[in-house]
This record gives sequence, C-alpha cells and structure tokens, in this order.
Amino acid sequence: MDNFYILHDSHSLNFRSPFGAVTLGTEVTINIEVENCEGVFLELIHFKGFCESIPMERKTEEEGQDNHTYSAVIKTQDTGLLNYFFTIKRYGETLYYGNNAEGLGGKGCLQKYDPKPFQITVYKDFKVPSWYKEGIIYQIFVDRFCNGNEDGHIDNPKKNSFIYGDWYDEPMYIRNSSGDIERWEFFGGNLQGVINKLPLIKSLGVTTIYLNPIFESPSSHKYDAADYKSIDPMFGNDEKFKELCSKALELNIRVVLDGVFSHTGSDSIYFNRYGNYSELGAYESKESPYYNWYKFRNHPNDYDCWWGFVNQPNVDELNPDYMNFIINDEDSVISKWMSLGASGWRLDVADELPDEFIKALKKKMKEVKEDSVLIGEVWEDASNKVAYDVKREYFFGDELDSVTNYPFRDSVLGFLKGDIDAHNIIRKLMSLYENYPREAFYSSMNTLGTHDTERLLTALQKGKEHKEEGEALLKLAIAFQMTFPGVPLIYYGDEAGLQGGADPKNRKAYPWGRENKEVFNWYKAMTSLRTNHEVFQKGEFKFYDVHKDVLCFERSLENTTALVMINRASQDIFFELHGNKNVQYYKNLIATEEVIENNFGVLRLKLKPLEVKILLNNI
Amino acid sequence: MDNFYILHDSHSLNFRSPFGAVTLGTEVTINIEVENCEGVFLELIHFKGFCESIPMERKTEEEGQDNHTYSAVIKTQDTGLLNYFFTIKRYGETLYYGNNAEGLGGKGCLQKYDPKPFQITVYKDFKVPSWYKEGIIYQIFVDRFCNGNEDGHIDNPKKNSFIYGDWYDEPMYIRNSSGDIERWEFFGGNLQGVINKLPLIKSLGVTTIYLNPIFESPSSHKYDAADYKSIDPMFGNDEKFKELCSKALELNIRVVLDGVFSHTGSDSIYFNRYGNYSELGAYESKESPYYNWYKFRNHPNDYDCWWGFVNQPNVDELNPDYMNFIINDEDSVISKWMSLGASGWRLDVADELPDEFIKALKKKMKEVKEDSVLIGEVWEDASNKVAYDVKREYFFGDELDSVTNYPFRDSVLGFLKGDIDAHNIIRKLMSLYENYPREAFYSSMNTLGTHDTERLLTALQKGKEHKEEGEALLKLAIAFQMTFPGVPLIYYGDEAGLQGGADPKNRKAYPWGRENKEVFNWYKAMTSLRTNHEVFQKGEFKFYDVHKDVLCFERSLENTTALVMINRASQDIFFELHGNKNVQYYKNLIATEEVIENNFGVLRLKLKPLEVKILLNNI
Repeated sequence: MDNFYILHDSHSLNFRSPFGAVTLGTEVTINIEVENCEGVFLELIHFKGFCESIPMERKTEEEGQDNHTYSAVIKTQDTGLLNYFFTIKRYGETLYYGNNAEGLGGKGCLQKYDPKPFQITVYKDFKVPSWYKEGIIYQIFVDRFCNGNEDGHIDNPKKNSFIYGDWYDEPMYIRNSSGDIERWEFFGGNLQGVINKLPLIKSLGVTTIYLNPIFESPSSHKYDAADYKSIDPMFGNDEKFKELCSKALELNIRVVLDGVFSHTGSDSIYFNRYGNYSELGAYESKESPYYNWYKFRNHPNDYDCWWGFVNQPNVDELNPDYMNFIINDEDSVISKWMSLGASGWRLDVADELPDEFIKALKKKMKEVKEDSVLIGEVWEDASNKVAYDVKREYFFGDELDSVTNYPFRDSVLGFLKGDIDAHNIIRKLMSLYENYPREAFYSSMNTLGTHDTERLLTALQKGKEHKEEGEALLKLAIAFQMTFPGVPLIYYGDEAGLQGGADPKNRKAYPWGRENKEVFNWYKAMTSLRTNHEVFQKGEFKFYDVHKDVLCFERSLENTTALVMINRASQDIFFELHGNKNVQYYKNLIATEEVIENNFGVLRLKLKPLEVKILLNNI
Repeated sequence: MDNFYILHDSHSLNFRSPFGAVTLGTEVTINIEVENCEGVFLELIHFKGFCESIPMERKTEEEGQDNHTYSAVIKTQDTGLLNYFFTIKRYGETLYYGNNAEGLGGKGCLQKYDPKPFQITVYKDFKVPSWYKEGIIYQIFVDRFCNGNEDGHIDNPKKNSFIYGDWYDEPMYIRNSSGDIERWEFFGGNLQGVINKLPLIKSLGVTTIYLNPIFESPSSHKYDAADYKSIDPMFGNDEKFKELCSKALELNIRVVLDGVFSHTGSDSIYFNRYGNYSELGAYESKESPYYNWYKFRNHPNDYDCWWGFVNQPNVDELNPDYMNFIINDEDSVISKWMSLGASGWRLDVADELPDEFIKALKKKMKEVKEDSVLIGEVWEDASNKVAYDVKREYFFGDELDSVTNYPFRDSVLGFLKGDIDAHNIIRKLMSLYENYPREAFYSSMNTLGTHDTERLLTALQKGKEHKEEGEALLKLAIAFQMTFPGVPLIYYGDEAGLQGGADPKNRKAYPWGRENKEVFNWYKAMTSLRTNHEVFQKGEFKFYDVHKDVLCFERSLENTTALVMINRASQDIFFELHGNKNVQYYKNLIATEEVIENNFGVLRLKLKPLEVKILLNNI
C-alpha cells in the first residue's frame, strides 16, 4: 500500500459534526479527505449488528489539488453504538481507513484489512440531577471512617470476629493456611460517626456521600450481603440511616448507597449456608423460597459464585422473585432505602448485571424519586464495554447516569508519574469525551483512588525519596480533578493525607487527630474553587496540547473563561498559549498576586517545577 | 540364664526400709531373696558418679529352703540419687538383678547385662508451707479469665493487635503465610477481673492462685517478657497487683506468679529488637547494659533462642548482671513482686534453668518471705530428670518445693480413657511416691489440664458419642484428684465445663453465664470434701490393686480412714477389700445414704458403672 493523503479526524467539526455522542435522530455529517481516488464508501456497523455501505459524495473540486472531500450525512435511527470506517476505491484496489490503533478517535489511519471503526454513541437524551452532576462526592468505607459512640464502644460486634486494638492499626486480612479469610476484622466505624462528621464533610463542598455497602453482612467490606433490608447492626439501624440522610440533606448533601446485586453472601438469610438465620436458605433446601435466586450446578455444594469466592454465591438477577425482591415489590430493597432517604445507588460490578435488570432498577428509582442517580461500577470506557461477549448498554438513556471513571485516574496518575506524556493523556481523555453522552461525561465519578486501588498519595509517592515530592504531585492531581469535567470523588482520608497500598492497606481508619494539614488545606482550597466557580462544574472544556510535561485545558461558561495548566516536570517550562481573545487579563487563582496579560490572544506562560496555574478572567 | 527364685521389691519394707526417698544420713536396709547362690553384692552408683560394690550378708538359714535373704545397710552420705542393683554369683556365673523394664521400682528383674538400677532419693529435709501443700490451686490465664472493668472496656490495648469481637469467641492464632504469629489477639481479662471473682474462687476451697505470666509483653500468653518489673498495662499496674494480693490474702488465698527466666521477649526493654523501648537493647548495640544477658553467635541477628523462636531470645541465667537483676538486687524482680504480695513462683521451663540459678532464687525467696513456695515446670518424674545431659537437682532440699505433676494427669486420663489398666496406673504413681521426697510428693501440683494441654473435658469426651459420658468421666477424674496426695490444680474454666483442644483452643475465655452447672456443682462438692477432711490433704496413702477397671486407695490420718474407689467400666463390678479392721462402718460421702459394713476387715463392694465411692469411717 503506497502512501497517499487521506484524513478523517473525528474530533474536528470539519470531519464530523456534531462532535461526539449524539441524541437519537440527530443527523451526523461525516467527511473524509482523500487524494485522487475513484470513490469512497462510508461503511456503517449498526449496534444490532447489520452493516450498511453508503457511497460518499465528492464535495470539493479545487484547481490544482489532488485532495477532495467526500461527504455523507447519516441519520441516527437506533440508540446504541454506530460504528463506521471508510473504503476507498483507488487504482482498482480497495483500501480501508479506520480509527487509529488505540481506537481513541481523532485522526484515523489507513489499514490493509480489518479496519478499527470510529464510534458514534447514539442515546436518548437524559438529564442527571444537578445536585450530583455539579457537586462533589465523598466516599466512606463506614467501618473505617468514624466511631460515633461517645465512649468509643462498638455496638454488636460479631461472633468470631476481631476488633483492631488501636484505631491507627495497619489493616490486615486474617487468613487460614489456604489463604482464605478466616475471620473478619473491624475498626468500629458506624453511621453515627458519619453523622458526627457531616460538618467536616460539608466543609469540603461535598454534595454526595457515597457509602460502601452498609447492609448486614459478616465482613467488614459488606460486599457479601446477609440481609438487604437491614443496616448492619455494627453500623446502626433503619432509624440511624434515616437520621443520617435527613441531617445530611439539611446540609444539602445526598446519600448514595452501594448496591451489590450480582451476588449475596453465603452466610445470609437467602443462602444460609451456615444455618445462622432462621429462614430456610437455598443452600439448606431446594424448597427454600430463595432456591431459584441461585445457580446450583449440583445442590447444595456446587454453585456459581462471584470470581470463585464460595462465600459470595452469584444470583440469577433476572429471576422474577429476585427482581421483585430487589426492585419491583412495594417494599423492595430499592424502595425501602430510597424512602428512608437514599438518593441514589452505585451498582457494584455493573458489568455482571444484565441490561434488563439495570433498566428495571433505573425505572423503579425514577418512580420513587425523580431526581435520583444511578452510577455503575465500570473500570473502562463504559460506552463500548463488552462484558461476557455482550455489548453493554449503559449510557443509551434508560440505564446509568454515571460510571466510575477509572480511566481518569489512570490518566492523571500516568501523567504525574511520568509514564505517559501530556499528548497521549489528552488523546485518552478526549476519547471518553467523544464517546460518552455529554451528561454522562459531566457526571463521571472522577476518582483518583477508591477502596479498590492504592491510595492516591501512596501511588504518587512511589519511587520518590522525599514525602514532599509525593505531596506536591498530589496537589497537582487534586487541582486537575477539581477543575476537570466530571464529578470529583474524594475517598475518605485522602484529604487527610492517608497513605496505603493495595487492599487492605487502602482501608485504614481515618487518621483523626493525625491529619496532614498541608494536604487537607489544599483539598479545601481546591474544593472551594470548584464550589465557588460554576465554570468548573459545568463549563465547556477544551484541551491545549502545548508540551509533553504540561496538561493544559480551558473551561468556559458564558463570560467566564478558566485556564488550568499543570507542570509535572522538575524544571521551569515556558510556552505560549493562544487563548481567548476577548479576555485581556487572567488572574492566577492559586498565586493570588499573579496576573497574566493576554497579548492579542497570546499568553506567554512560565510554569515553575510542579506548578499548577488556574487562571480565571472574570475576577 | 536359667530361671530361679530371686526377689527384691523396693515397695515392700521387707526388702527396703525405710520406704522411698530418705533424708540425708538415714540408714537404709536393703534385702534381696535369692535361691542357692555363692554370694550377692549390692552395687551402688552414687550421684556424683562413683560406684561401690558391697558384699551382702546372708541372713536366713531355714531348713529345707533354697531361699535366703541377703542384706546390707547403707548410710546415705550425699544428697542426690543413690542408685543400686545386685550382682549374684551362682555356679561361677555373675547375674544381675535390677529394676523392672519401665524403671518403676517395686519388683525388679534378672538381667543379663546393663541392669536398670533402683533409685533412692536422698535429700536434706525441707518443709513446704501448709497453705500451699494442704490447699487447692486455681490457675488463671489472665487475658481469658475476666474483664473486671465495669463497662467492659479494655485498658491500653496494644498497637497492631486484635481484640476478640465476642467474649465467647473461639481463640485462634493470627499467623502470616510462613506460619509465624503476625499479630496478637486479646480477650481483655485483667487483674481487676480476678479481684472481682475472688469470692467465687474462694468457694472452690482455693488457697493458691497461680497466675500465668502477667508482666508486660506483646503477646497474650506473656511468656515473652518485655519488662519484668511492670504489670502488663492491659492487666493493671503495681497498685492493682498489690490490691489483688491483699484482697486474696483476706480470704486466705496466696498468689503465685509465673517466672519466665530462661528467655525474654525480643520486643523488650532488654533485647529491644524493634526499638520500641527507650533503653539501649542488646540487639541494638554491644554497648547495651543487657548485651551480656544474651548468647549471640553473631551480633545482632544470630542468637540463641527458645526452641528456635526468634522472638524469645535465651538468656545466660548465670550471668552475674542477670542474676542480680532477677534475684540478688535489693529491688530484684523476685524481691519486688514478693514485697508487693506474691507468695511464690512457678518457674517456667525449669529444665532450662541451671541448678545454681534455682538454688539462688530459692534462697532469696526464703529470705524475703519464709513461707513462700517455689514450683518448677517439669513434665516427667522430676527426681531423676536429665536435661541437656545434666542430672537435675530439683528435690534435694535447696531447690524446688513442688513440680507440675503431668505424670499424674497422664495416669488419670490413661486410666479413665481405658488406655492403661489400674494395675499399671498404680505402678506409675507408686514410682513417683517412691522417688519423690514426701514433702514434694504431697506438694505436687496435681494437674488434670493446663494452658499447655487440651482441656480435661475435651480429653475425656474424645471418641464418646454423648457429652454425658465425658462428664461422667470428668467427675471420676475430679474425685480422684481431690482425694489423692498432692495439691489439686484447677485450670480456670475446667470447673465450668469449658472445652477445647490443644493450644489455643484450651485458652478460651471463661464462660461467664454459660457455665455447666452440673460440672461446677461437682467441683464444689469435691473441693469441699478435700477442704473439710484433713485426711485428704495430708493423710497417709496406700493403693489397693483390686481390679483392672477399679482404682482404689486408702487415705488415713489419726483415727480417720478414707477409701476411694473408682469404676471406669460401664458395668457393675463386685470385689472384696481387706480394709482397716478397726473400722466397723464406712459411709459413702457421695451417696449419703450408703453405709458399708466392714465384716471382720473384709468389705464387700459393688461399684456401679462409672461410679466413685468415697468412704469415710468417722462420720
């Protein structure tokens, strides 16, 4: 295949308009520029699987030029993904032009065969409640956050479990010689503790508290529910939950629960493997009312379970009894907790829940509380996720409002740790921006760390000699997170400088009285910035690709323009930015003295080592 | 070697007089009966190693008899063991007559070569305080006995340790993947708990509380001292210890401490491996004042340690600094705790402590408190123990008052479980009786279970279908223990029917509120029996070898005679006992209605299955 000029850039309105994901029925114009050729076809792959080959119309005929634009307009007819690539007839041959090798959108490339397609996400319009979308999330692993009992006692400790001797102990799993968990260990945090700390949480601009699971279960993580309809007795009870929700709401904070519906615990009312509950469990008898919830290969000991953990038997989510219990019944799990005050759900392992289950759940939620939110745990680009050979429907209008944005974390950490340069970070984040419905992108749960990753500060500290270096990088990360589109999530304790590697080290108890003040104050400053400037909550955004060590982007809303630029390098970096011509002066919100002149649309900038500038025009 | 008549029976006064161990200077007459022979020599092996061959005098010359008694009188000249056997000249040959194959004393046997000698223990007379010798011991593993804090909180829990979630939890060790202890776990018992339960302990006739180690240490067992001069802060402090001792003494109960002097903990003031203490530890520097306490092969990581456990470095007990610290200084460990109220010490792993160390310690103890007691942990017959190729001196007058009597436990359990018949149990126990100084035998710490063995009830229950069977056997065991010479030891919780296998299962928390009432009442009855009848505390004793399934012995003191008989079988057993002719009627102290007539010195007895009779004349 000889080289010749050919270009389609999905990020450019010259080639695809409108940009990115579109609502159902939108007409999308697709252009491609090609050197002399006999004809170009737009090859469409519809979500349901059928393909379509559309001859493209030659648009330009300029003298002395070999380049011509071919164009087609497609009307989106179905929600789902609409994928496309191009076939070019040239000198009797057929050439393919598709997406770049990483499938990130933007500029494509010529391929001999099997072209990687571009993606247009087509969705029914949906709105994510602004309390969520424009807010800040605080994630709490309840056992590790705060023991709200005045004398520090622990309510209802479980039989054959352990309590850490000291609040500041290093967490560990207690395993038997086969490596299985032998007993669970607890610090003794509870809902009263969360209630006590609401003012502190509020001081970080938080609008949403996301609680890791709180329903009764034998473990400290509670991803193995024993009773979906009870608060774990170590944490509190229905009344305490209601109190938490109402006291939070007085501070304009909503509570989102973690719904773990792909499996239950084996030591549960429903499965009752150990006979600890009075009801007849599925393990105990085929006559159990819960028998059909589970997938026994050979009753009782051989059953499908989550990632092979026999203490977490998988359920058949589409079993009508199960769906009624969780979703449809008047007193269903969803109804009960929402009527007691929950404003949304985060669906654990959404990839393992059938689309039908998620849609039914979403429908019920909206019935019970119109402005509730549904967030899915997804680790990759959720728009084109294929799980278990099924293309997942997360963002097409009737499903999730938001997903956990782990690609965001990978990008920020990859950049700050020097693993990926700014150019490629921009490509990765632009890909999400292109593929996600705007509401979904602006509602992404932008995390820099959760109970499933190592702690932010620990990740950044790695390989650094001095703790100051990690802290400086952490400041850059937080500045980025608090100014970027998507909902920032603060994992409890990160704001106090808590450190810890992979699970269980990332689940230390909150360091009450031992907070890293420097880090905490930075969090407060950055969250205030987001809270005080709507431009960071909902402004348009655009990247500037200026230097491999600098991440730079613009946010704009009405008359406000903000510029964020982050230097990861340990030297000064000088560059020019061709900024918004309407603005004459930008003020750096971080170094309050600094004012930068916009010289006929050109900003001359200097970033010091590990500096972040956040510039705003309307001061 | 042809068979011919020859007999020496060390248990019979016809053959050896006086019986058993003798005080220094006592003349012992030794006889042997032999068929026609040319001469008999008594071969003596003195403790220090030298041997002596004494021609024996032919005593009897009866007509028509081939048997003749040969006799010798020896004067004991040194403390220690005096061993002996016989050489017989017959038809020009030399024959050897020595102890039986098990070395148990009593009847000996002819041997071709290498005869096993008989033993005479020669000791300087010593007196064991009657509060100890005539009393009952209650052993407490403090962390597992009782949390005396009113609200149940735990004082000073250790960093990176665990507290059991529930008082009734099954104990376990928390190990890493190499099998080493990773963290210590605690139930939270403390000295205040012991104080609170003194009345209950008193109700069992207890005169001595033996506490497992209570000095500061990282572990729950505390056999790894961190500070010999502090009570572990989870347990209490000096004041609390003093209070315990004085409140106990008001109830006529003395406190005996566990002295662990063969090694310290590695995480200690002295060794300070982890730098947790402010003093300069031996591990940290050769300049440490404690450096010479330890035995480094290569400082700091290669050192001698107890049974290879690197967290328990062995000390050089004879190092003058160490001896002064533990024993000789005015404020030595021994002095400090005795002046605060301790009445004695139980020496952990006495086998690993040099004789000189034990003697110095005993001397100091007697100086500080004349009526104190020193008990050694020894697992076998302590009179002839050889440890590390050294003949140990435990009972020769300047050393121990008492040892842990594990052979007693083996015998009682072996009999009740059907492993050994009554005849052989008698032989084993008679061997101790013969070898131990009378004071030592009557002061033996007669245990049926400790923190180092499986629980009594569990041992007896093994292989039984119904729990009642184990409980019935337990009753027999306790009846035996409470009527036999030696000081009965009750391991906390045994009296409440606590069960549990080997360590750590034998260290469950005391089942407050869940006591086995039946077992508890039996303990109370049997301890009252011992407490109310001096004959069981200090009476002479004699076995009757009546039936393989019946253990029977007599206790007698002045005009009181008691007979104890225990049927381990599941059927009735009838037998005759040729009892004390001065007694006409015996009353069964257990079935209060039963009176048995002594028919001209012959008692006709029937024991029902698993029955114990305890008969007493002076009712």
